[in-house]
Amino acid sequence: MKSVIISIGDEVLIGQVVNTNAAWLGKELVAMGFPAGRIVTIPDNEKEILKEFRSAYKNYDIIAVTGGLGPTHDDITVKTVAKFFKSKYVLNEKVLKHVKNIFARRKIQMPAANIGQALVPDIAKVLENKTGTAPGLLIDKAGKVFCVMPGVPYEMKYISRTGFFPYLQKKFSSKKRNVIKQQTLHTIGIGESMLAEKLGDINKIVRKGNGYEVKLAFLPSNYEVRLRVTVSAVSEFIADKLLKETTGLIKTKAGNFIYSDSESSIEKTVGSLLKKKKLTISCAESCTGGLLTSKLTDISGSSGYVMDAIVGYANEAKQRLLGVKKETLKKYGAVSELTAIEMAEGIRKRSKTDIGLSTTGIAGPTGARPGKPVGLVWIGYSDKKISFAKKYIFTKDRLRNKDIMAKMALEVVRRQLTIDNYQ
Amino acid sequence: MKSVIISIGDEVLIGQVVNTNAAWLGKELVAMGFPAGRIVTIPDNEKEILKEFRSAYKNYDIIAVTGGLGPTHDDITVKTVAKFFKSKYVLNEKVLKHVKNIFARRKIQMPAANIGQALVPDIAKVLENKTGTAPGLLIDKAGKVFCVMPGVPYEMKYISRTGFFPYLQKKFSSKKRNVIKQQTLHTIGIGESMLAEKLGDINKIVRKGNGYEVKLAFLPSNYEVRLRVTVSAVSEFIADKLLKETTGLIKTKAGNFIYSDSESSIEKTVGSLLKKKKLTISCAESCTGGLLTSKLTDISGSSGYVMDAIVGYANEAKQRLLGVKKETLKKYGAVSELTAIEMAEGIRKRSKTDIGLSTTGIAGPTGARPGKPVGLVWIGYSDKKISFAKKYIFTKDRLRNKDIMAKMALEVVRRQLTIDNYQ
Repeated sequence: MKSVIISIGDEVLIGQVVNTNAAWLGKELVAMGFPAGRIVTIPDNEKEILKEFRSAYKNYDIIAVTGGLGPTHDDITVKTVAKFFKSKYVLNEKVLKHVKNIFARRKIQMPAANIGQALVPDIAKVLENKTGTAPGLLIDKAGKVFCVMPGVPYEMKYISRTGFFPYLQKKFSSKKRNVIKQQTLHTIGIGESMLAEKLGDINKIVRKGNGYEVKLAFLPSNYEVRLRVTVSAVSEFIADKLLKETTGLIKTKAGNFIYSDSESSIEKTVGSLLKKKKLTISCAESCTGGLLTSKLTDISGSSGYVMDAIVGYANEAKQRLLGVKKETLKKYGAVSELTAIEMAEGIRKRSKTDIGLSTTGIAGPTGARPGKPVGLVWIGYSDKKISFAKKYIFTKDRLRNKDIMAKMALEVVRRQLTIDNYQ
Repeated sequence: MKSVIISIGDEVLIGQVVNTNAAWLGKELVAMGFPAGRIVTIPDNEKEILKEFRSAYKNYDIIAVTGGLGPTHDDITVKTVAKFFKSKYVLNEKVLKHVKNIFARRKIQMPAANIGQALVPDIAKVLENKTGTAPGLLIDKAGKVFCVMPGVPYEMKYISRTGFFPYLQKKFSSKKRNVIKQQTLHTIGIGESMLAEKLGDINKIVRKGNGYEVKLAFLPSNYEVRLRVTVSAVSEFIADKLLKETTGLIKTKAGNFIYSDSESSIEKTVGSLLKKKKLTISCAESCTGGLLTSKLTDISGSSGYVMDAIVGYANEAKQRLLGVKKETLKKYGAVSELTAIEMAEGIRKRSKTDIGLSTTGIAGPTGARPGKPVGLVWIGYSDKKISFAKKYIFTKDRLRNKDIMAKMALEVVRRQLTIDNYQ
């Protein structure tokens, strides 16, 4: 059972609207076992629409169409559906009443243009839309399901959930189809290719057999890599088993680097760890300029473990607010191992928290010095037992640097709290 | 000149990634006069990719392809391009050197898999990618331009701006087409409908005539509204004139609320103002949790005007680090006008800066108290002459609140420094 998603509308083609509808439908369809083989966006143009409908009908079992159902002159999708199915185009009294009611409730006179929204191809089953004027239309012909919905995201979702998806599940429930399961493992601060090396023989992970398939995708972005495992199998039981086996194998190979297997962010993972271990944290930030603390406080409930933070951009502030020694700054500079350690210790002691975390580096694009390139960061960690700093070199881009430096600082805390002998 | 955008990647089909690349490319291509006639997303599958390439080559002049250029087994785009053009697949020394340099700079040994990224079809012109390992590939054949770029958004944008777009503009510069010009005016903290009222008669802005058209779009997002003016005209001269006229008219109507007409962020606008006026700033943050200072320090050169900042989540920290009076906290609470003012004054005096800026509020989703709903924020401002606080109520969502509260604090500074008698 393969599906195709067709989005109709000039506003998507010119980039005025980001096509979140397709992403949502893609996710839902794959979860039901009807993965989309293709997503297409085309203009509000009869010829293009007809061409796409023909191709979709030939190649796919389920055709999900969104957009072009509004009341204005440029909305031609329904008319074109009637033409494609060579169906009569009739006034549907139930839809007309629904549209009229919407205007009556808002105490607004219905514009004539809205009557057009009650005209539907008579071959179609009308799917109710309680969230707007345009109904969904479903046509089941030659074993294929064709569904047209409005482009407004919440209307499309409403019709999908109440009409389109239940229809699909009922119709295809007896057909034997593969169950698809996915899980994504998140890593940070380890390169894509190095991660691949750690995983070892890829054919022990990616494999195909009678009635099942296991796929692995590497999804990198700014020093984070997500590993997405997709399993397709004849039964839920086998799919679950394969998924658990595969993610288990990956974890034995690269477990220390995986901070989440449940789509949690690094700040959420660290927050949960601190909460569980009843630890508090404070931050002394230089190059991350507040972003590290901002990430920590993105989590609701973080006021329970995040105490205060100090952004000490200037050397003077590093001395006055954090107690970094003048000699340290003079001898090693602000971007150095010892400064990072003194910052972390300073904030920990002054804020009376269990952990002190610091960043000092060169976010860029300017500020590089001999031996200290843009992208260099020292991340300092301090608790009652140990203080240390780690060095990383990232990119030449200021915003990317701030983001990954802040995330890497959180990852340093995570590793320290979870890996034996990380230091 | 019609273009087509092809996105390659299973992650897009299953909805794990929203296709923002296509929206961005669609917007840029239409602005250059090469509107996309179609956007297609297909899987990492050779047969599907070849089929789409064939169809694209037949129907469009410009083919923009993104995705599938990574170093791992599931990245097959480049190989498939070589097959499609029946081109030899050769090692490009320049690309190899670039990839090696990236690893050398980070002092990491290059994994063998990355060598594969230097293999390119010999028919292709290599477009440099300073932001990552995979280069862009451009093939100009039979009057058509075919360009392949990585799917990572900032890499795709970098290659588009520095290689792909300049090539298109040069190649197609002689063709006659309408000139399209756009400018976007940014506002913050003023509602869409109130802004529309301020603009007055919309028909004086939106207009159409012989060979020209002026359009206006309201683009709202989380208490910011962007006004995008699009002008289409037969010549560059007329387009520029109309654009200047129209944005000028909007500025006379709503100028005080427009913080940027050049895609500058509010933090950039405020940073430039501080620099120009030779003023320094320090922040005392509670509900924004570091985000306000992080935004200020997003701007390169901000170390010249941002002194230190303190995130005082706990009442104790507000007293110890900022000098907020115990009685103030007791009588009015941490989220109050007086606390905001004392925080702003406290950080200004302790940091010896010209301006002190503070936020205290309830980011949510929990923490509401009678008379103090989630979304409430007091923004405090203090300089040598005046101290005051402003109250706003935003959303129920923590992350949206943090973002708009931080931006609104910057907007308070902007208005104070630019509007006569703002206080």
